[in-house]
Amino acid sequence: MPRETAKQDFPVAQVRRYLEPGPIVLVSSRWQGRDNVMTLGWHTVLEFAPSLIGMVIARGNHSHRMIRDSGTCVVNLPTTALTDTVVDIGNTSGADVDKFARFGLATRDGTSVDAPLIEACHANFECRLHDDALVERYDFFIFEVVKAHVAVRPRHPETLHYTGDGVFMVAGKVISRRGRFRPEMLD
Amino acid sequence: MPRETAKQDFPVAQVRRYLEPGPIVLVSSRWQGRDNVMTLGWHTVLEFAPSLIGMVIARGNHSHRMIRDSGTCVVNLPTTALTDTVVDIGNTSGADVDKFARFGLATRDGTSVDAPLIEACHANFECRLHDDALVERYDFFIFEVVKAHVAVRPRHPETLHYTGDGVFMVAGKVISRRGRFRPEMLD
Repeated sequence: MPRETAKQDFPVAQVRRYLEPGPIVLVSSRWQGRDNVMTLGWHTVLEFAPSLIGMVIARGNHSHRMIRDSGTCVVNLPTTALTDTVVDIGNTSGADVDKFARFGLATRDGTSVDAPLIEACHANFECRLHDDALVERYDFFIFEVVKAHVAVRPRHPETLHYTGDGVFMVAGKVISRRGRFRPEMLD
Repeated sequence: MPRETAKQDFPVAQVRRYLEPGPIVLVSSRWQGRDNVMTLGWHTVLEFAPSLIGMVIARGNHSHRMIRDSGTCVVNLPTTALTDTVVDIGNTSGADVDKFARFGLATRDGTSVDAPLIEACHANFECRLHDDALVERYDFFIFEVVKAHVAVRPRHPETLHYTGDGVFMVAGKVISRRGRFRPEMLD
């Protein structure tokens, strides 16, 4: 693996750095010896510590049952380099296809949960189901991020933000207003 | 108001167009004759129809009690033209300051809910509280968007996506992969 994509442990209380901007993510899972991955855009940060995130995993997805049964998943952050793969993953179902083989996605095993991390992604967040109170009503899962791995470079990767209808916005340009914040508002 | 910023009714089932990309939003509210507005980055789309969104409105915010009591709010979408205002709103509390007067924000009344729309924002989504099941546990409110107003132009405004620590990513560049999607995946 080239040095630029080497990943380091990252503090789970700071995953908002990558998820609050609202990127499309790839959610991978494992159940009964089979791996799967889906594209997902409906998620939010819920709490810093414990590190909680909420995600809508619609029951029409093969991943829904796998994640419900295993109680774990990995949230992987793709960059624009993976745009076509992101679309292709969303276009196929794990009920029919081994998406990792089909799309040539190298993985390694999670260190804290039994699910695959996607190497080509900028970050991997290992998650454990924390609260299923709204799963029945809204397919809304609340996970605790228990382990985070983030690529050392680039500092601000270009990420994909889905608008529907086949169109993504790209975020990558950065503007800082640090000097304008009250110090206690910076975290 | 210049013609470019004129707003039109927009289908509430399609608000994901603006919210799924994960922008910072300004949430305005009204209760007992007083208006307030806060900056918010923790939100997600939950359902197309009814048009449901979930948002974390932390109880440390003056808006929390106002929105709980009124059961309504407006989600306003600022562009990069409002960057400093977004920061300043986040830096102040409605308990101390009339932020609309302080920051020179023109408003008009909602047509479906009793709360102010911020004119300078690209879009205004009028919301009614739909489910408070997770408010106690996570400050997580589920709203139905009951009315949407969106500026006719520009088609793809530059939006702000907060990373924490005073830094925003900017999304505005657009890439389409319409041709790569299965037709039934486009909505």
